[in-house]
Amino acid sequence: MAANLTKVEAALDAWVTDTPVPSLGWGAPAGLVQAMRYAVLDGGKRLRPLLALAAFDAVAPEAAATADVAALRAACAVELIHAYSLVHDDMPCMDNDVLRRGKPTVHVKFGEAGALLAGDALQALAFELLTPDDGSVPLAVQGRLCAVLARAAGSTGMAGGQAIDLASVGRPLEEPALRHMHQLKTGALLQASVMLGAVCGQASESVQRALSDYGCAIGLAFQVVDDVLDVTADTAALGKTAGKDADNHKPTYVSLLGLAASQRLAKNLLAQAHGALAASGLENTAALAGLANLVVQRGH
Amino acid sequence: MAANLTKVEAALDAWVTDTPVPSLGWGAPAGLVQAMRYAVLDGGKRLRPLLALAAFDAVAPEAAATADVAALRAACAVELIHAYSLVHDDMPCMDNDVLRRGKPTVHVKFGEAGALLAGDALQALAFELLTPDDGSVPLAVQGRLCAVLARAAGSTGMAGGQAIDLASVGRPLEEPALRHMHQLKTGALLQASVMLGAVCGQASESVQRALSDYGCAIGLAFQVVDDVLDVTADTAALGKTAGKDADNHKPTYVSLLGLAASQRLAKNLLAQAHGALAASGLENTAALAGLANLVVQRGH
Repeated sequence: MAANLTKVEAALDAWVTDTPVPSLGWGAPAGLVQAMRYAVLDGGKRLRPLLALAAFDAVAPEAAATADVAALRAACAVELIHAYSLVHDDMPCMDNDVLRRGKPTVHVKFGEAGALLAGDALQALAFELLTPDDGSVPLAVQGRLCAVLARAAGSTGMAGGQAIDLASVGRPLEEPALRHMHQLKTGALLQASVMLGAVCGQASESVQRALSDYGCAIGLAFQVVDDVLDVTADTAALGKTAGKDADNHKPTYVSLLGLAASQRLAKNLLAQAHGALAASGLENTAALAGLANLVVQRGH
Repeated sequence: MAANLTKVEAALDAWVTDTPVPSLGWGAPAGLVQAMRYAVLDGGKRLRPLLALAAFDAVAPEAAATADVAALRAACAVELIHAYSLVHDDMPCMDNDVLRRGKPTVHVKFGEAGALLAGDALQALAFELLTPDDGSVPLAVQGRLCAVLARAAGSTGMAGGQAIDLASVGRPLEEPALRHMHQLKTGALLQASVMLGAVCGQASESVQRALSDYGCAIGLAFQVVDDVLDVTADTAALGKTAGKDADNHKPTYVSLLGLAASQRLAKNLLAQAHGALAASGLENTAALAGLANLVVQRGH
């Protein structure tokens, strides 16, 4: 996992850059790239890229070097979608947060317009990463990867979940509605991370189904644990403002089920994730199992 | 061209929708879809989709019905990118415009957070349209289409141009810098519209080069004419606030070259576009020629 983390950090550093595009004769403007790099580099647990690479390694342990590059591109692409969502989510018209990963948020540092554009450009860059013209990702795989990522990011995925979240502030939600919101807002992209790795590794349909179940379980577990940490951890440990959800009267698992029941739910979902890995029939699932544990047992 | 316009309007109406995704069991939240539809439907000249379809028709006049669907998807995808850029561009932290196509802008109608999310979701939906799982677009073509659209939308395209625009308010720009900004901000997506149609029609490399030259010329012409209209047309004709650029001390072709020279430049670019069509060797270029004329001779 440490080796994969190093690869991801180096790749993000190399791919979120202002190198001119030879066919165009120009690069991205320096100020925009600076804001994009600020949003992406030097921070974050890289959970989504690690999930993508762990799924790929589990599915294709003996993969050729080119498939390896495809998986690394997919891993970085999903992280760019995650990074852009944080930039936009922190803006004054959304969560209005000034602190992220212990640093000023992008709009505090680069202005609101700069943050808006940096987020927009990061979403596009995710699809640029998936569609290189150097042969490192087969064209048919490019299409599949873009399909999975776009659906997880859009109105039936992350953006849709954020819209439900926005509409739910101060309104009581039943558990099914809360779960639905989180499946879109956080779950869809975490599940997609796993599926992107599986697509790069040419997983069979039955393996894809098992990994999809694994991704679904940890996707929901992630949000349940997030809700728990918002209550139990402090701002320094989180690197973002604690207690924010309660202050905003947002429905959370803790407000709905209580703290103890939320912690039990997280453990149940972890067991489901491990069960799905066992059902996959894959042998090399230690990294995926470890990431599931990390999601549930993290302190921030 | 009227037939293509009808097809585009019907397709946008059908594809920007809240139909549940069968594999997920849920659809996009209604409020978000409403904002997305408001941003996309019932307005706009549909120049980019018409360019995509005209390029496709020129390249593949005898195309099979499936290729036809691919071209329609590409045409709508580029319009969604355009629509999202207008939503974000109108927001208070950017141009702060309250009127677009004669209607209240999206953030006026749905709030700033709603506009932010609708724009984000429209960008993702563009890539969803390019990557259907029903076989209507061959997987390899999906990859190529996503590659072209992502690069035209991102930091080396539209978003990059907007960032330069933002950084240039109140600063004098020389003509090459102004041209560079417009090539990214407006030109890249117009050129991409043409290229998406060419890719769907499996155009040869030499035809793609000629169409790329055509797209480059009309892309720049579009912006020169926009700058001219900002001075010569009134708010009612434009459907947006006239004189806005001068008020914001934005560099424009008119402020740089003067009105008469800007109008001459637009005519020269139109001649270049017609020249590129002649050089393409294609026979069926009447629609592309007509669209070039429309770009330069439009009144709004």
